[in-house]
Amino acid sequence: MKLAIYGYGNLGKGVESAIAQNPDATLTGIFTRRNPSAVKPIGNVPVYMINDLPNHAAEIDVLIICGGSATDLPKMTPELAASFNVVDSFDTHAKIPEHFARVDEAAKANGHTALISGGWDPGMFSVNRLYASAILPDGQDYTFWGRGVSQGHSDAIRRIEGVLDARQYTVPIPAAVEAVRAGKNPTLSTREKHTRECYVVAAEGADKARIEREIKEMPNYFADYDTTVTFISAEEMKKNHSGLPHGGSVIRTGTTAKGNRHVIEYSLKLDSNPEFTAGVLVALARAVDRLNKRGRTGCLTIFDIAPADLSPLSPEELRKKML
Amino acid sequence: MKLAIYGYGNLGKGVESAIAQNPDATLTGIFTRRNPSAVKPIGNVPVYMINDLPNHAAEIDVLIICGGSATDLPKMTPELAASFNVVDSFDTHAKIPEHFARVDEAAKANGHTALISGGWDPGMFSVNRLYASAILPDGQDYTFWGRGVSQGHSDAIRRIEGVLDARQYTVPIPAAVEAVRAGKNPTLSTREKHTRECYVVAAEGADKARIEREIKEMPNYFADYDTTVTFISAEEMKKNHSGLPHGGSVIRTGTTAKGNRHVIEYSLKLDSNPEFTAGVLVALARAVDRLNKRGRTGCLTIFDIAPADLSPLSPEELRKKML
Repeated sequence: MKLAIYGYGNLGKGVESAIAQNPDATLTGIFTRRNPSAVKPIGNVPVYMINDLPNHAAEIDVLIICGGSATDLPKMTPELAASFNVVDSFDTHAKIPEHFARVDEAAKANGHTALISGGWDPGMFSVNRLYASAILPDGQDYTFWGRGVSQGHSDAIRRIEGVLDARQYTVPIPAAVEAVRAGKNPTLSTREKHTRECYVVAAEGADKARIEREIKEMPNYFADYDTTVTFISAEEMKKNHSGLPHGGSVIRTGTTAKGNRHVIEYSLKLDSNPEFTAGVLVALARAVDRLNKRGRTGCLTIFDIAPADLSPLSPEELRKKML
Repeated sequence: MKLAIYGYGNLGKGVESAIAQNPDATLTGIFTRRNPSAVKPIGNVPVYMINDLPNHAAEIDVLIICGGSATDLPKMTPELAASFNVVDSFDTHAKIPEHFARVDEAAKANGHTALISGGWDPGMFSVNRLYASAILPDGQDYTFWGRGVSQGHSDAIRRIEGVLDARQYTVPIPAAVEAVRAGKNPTLSTREKHTRECYVVAAEGADKARIEREIKEMPNYFADYDTTVTFISAEEMKKNHSGLPHGGSVIRTGTTAKGNRHVIEYSLKLDSNPEFTAGVLVALARAVDRLNKRGRTGCLTIFDIAPADLSPLSPEELRKKML
């Protein structure tokens, strides 16, 4: 399958690397809003301006859109789905139904196949919530995130006056995770599930007490959590906090006859959030390519993809080696 | 959907309980090889002899076959798939391709839909192996089973002269699991992955030393493992070993660009192996019913089922609540 990348930030770079690990996929181009000559891909891949896209349609089975969920994807994905089969990683959970409807309309009207909200949450975590709830109807779901970097929370800190750089780690509270794993079905407040650790580089002479207070009192982002703020130097930030690790667990506990208890847990421990997300997107692009060739058009999510369509192996090989 | 159960042992009972937890499913009958009047279902369900099955075809959307993999299912599933949509839990991994081919032929020739090898291994463990390998192509898979009762190994001990009853627990070796979770990619021999704990009730006057030796030297079953044998009384067996707990973990570790490492783990901790397996089978029966109504016939496995088809929720509800 011939894939192209639209947008070349951390996620786009991850997709380039992921495609290189999949022998049945070829990366035919990277499309960027920047000056193509300023973009240096890892491999030997042509870089084009985004308005060149129509000239390369014949070289693209699926376009992987690597934009942000806040402003890029709500506009990009419906527009691009009118002309291409597409995959995105739209992750604003509350706005998924609206995004789905717009992408579905554009894709269906033009005979294309689109998959939205690929990645791990939404994505692999979602699919595990679905499997677990279908198997254990009488049960309860828990999702823990971390330990990992939340880019949204890091950005929120960076917008505070006097902050030069910031990195925020979301950390699940071990006692909460253990109570869930033990099948105790605890009722957990937001504060009881996660803590937030902030590492901040302040400008010289900035009022650190005020910065710390502004972080801890920020509504939605920090006010409902036990938050720690640690001021560090720019060097320390670069040395110890330049990665984008993440992960977490989806746990469902439920009972069957006679009170028998069951625990299903799906966990991820990721050195690089964007590179792992990219791995999911490339597998989903494979399914989109196959479904489009079978005539299934419109918008899909990972819920609509039979697992076999994610794999380069044939159905026979899968049954023999993995079942 | 109207479901029926074919075979009423531990698994059949689990399926009866699971159906009661799914409001969109109705159990219309239990079919047994025994005398129906000797079978006491948990709920208020008619029990029929298996040769009565043709008279009840109109009451059955999907028949859940609860037989053993060694001799029952290889014969039952192809035969029944000629007349019904069916689900089974065939778990002899090496014979899956052959079983698939025979069931596929019977189902396709008669416009029915069959799903084989449902449960957790094969089943949910398999599907997690598939997802993980599609996302992380450069990686390695590990499956650990237990701590849990292996019925096959328990049966093997019971066949030894002088043994009245036996229960065998498969136990993963913690150091091996930890090495895998830590991303160390260890090469593990059979002996390094699991130990086997055997609890045995011996006949009065039986030669316990011989029994222990026969167990530990039994090829395939025990010879390649560190095995412990503990002789207990019939009372102790009943009191402490009457459950059928099981579980385990599927772990894939892999790398992406620049050596970034990722760990995906799917774990189950089950109080009752047959009741959990039954929960998977009922969810799969829902998908079989839907796929048959959409005209998809022949033999399928869990690899072919889009997760959305396992859930009673609509696609809209799933996207809103679970994605």
